[in-house]
Amino acid sequence: MTKINFSDEYFMRQALNEAQIAFQKDEIPVGAVVVCNKQIISRAHNLTETLNDVTAHAEMLAITAAAEFLGGKYLNECTLYVTLEPCTMCAGALSWSQIGNITFGASDDKRGFLRHTPPIIHPKTIIKKGILELECSDIVKNFFKNKR
Amino acid sequence: MTKINFSDEYFMRQALNEAQIAFQKDEIPVGAVVVCNKQIISRAHNLTETLNDVTAHAEMLAITAAAEFLGGKYLNECTLYVTLEPCTMCAGALSWSQIGNITFGASDDKRGFLRHTPPIIHPKTIIKKGILELECSDIVKNFFKNKR
Repeated sequence: MTKINFSDEYFMRQALNEAQIAFQKDEIPVGAVVVCNKQIISRAHNLTETLNDVTAHAEMLAITAAAEFLGGKYLNECTLYVTLEPCTMCAGALSWSQIGNITFGASDDKRGFLRHTPPIIHPKTIIKKGILELECSDIVKNFFKNKR
Repeated sequence: MTKINFSDEYFMRQALNEAQIAFQKDEIPVGAVVVCNKQIISRAHNLTETLNDVTAHAEMLAITAAAEFLGGKYLNECTLYVTLEPCTMCAGALSWSQIGNITFGASDDKRGFLRHTPPIIHPKTIIKKGILELECSDIVKNFFKNKR
């Protein structure tokens, strides 16, 4: 039996797999997983085009599915892994969910939540960034390169 | 035949009706309608407790339903009427939707989107506030008074 190393890279790789599925669906390739006690309790990718709905970001769908799994809407004990820095909408939702940790891959200087003051996320939420940054960034760049 | 005056007050009254339905369901009483060419194309009220989902704010549900009705995810020609100033999550969603107008009743100094910089909403979106302000504010106050 292969022992799995439940590192940040392991879970971000799962989020990247979701982003890859989005890419194949011609969606902006962003993926997310929510982890609780080293277990992935939800997975999602961006579906704004498929669902014709601006609210269908990977993070939003992952938050809703995680709450459904847990039977409670607060995610204090959970970590969200997402390939791209969340936007203000998703950060607002993460704030309402009281999520414990947000770990993202690539920064989004234009649409990311970190540029806003006062901070959108609760100060107790631990934010980590730069996990598999290059891969998380490249998949988005490649998507838009193909569009030109 | 009674001629209806399609004023801001008229549409905010419809949003207040939605807030009243939320109140009766023991949900924080916020209601919203999306209007396009003087026609209400979606109505929603807060359902976070019922759906066990922090993303189920009135505005989010109204945006999703309006896009479904229009068959397109952009709401440039629409006005959102909502009883309470949207939070950062809802404002982020409204920004993605490119909504034309946001008209709200009561301000929310603690959770409202207007306190953030840089602004969350696109500068072209026209924001109006204070429509039926007292009623929109009182229904929330009464809700929390009953909880004590």
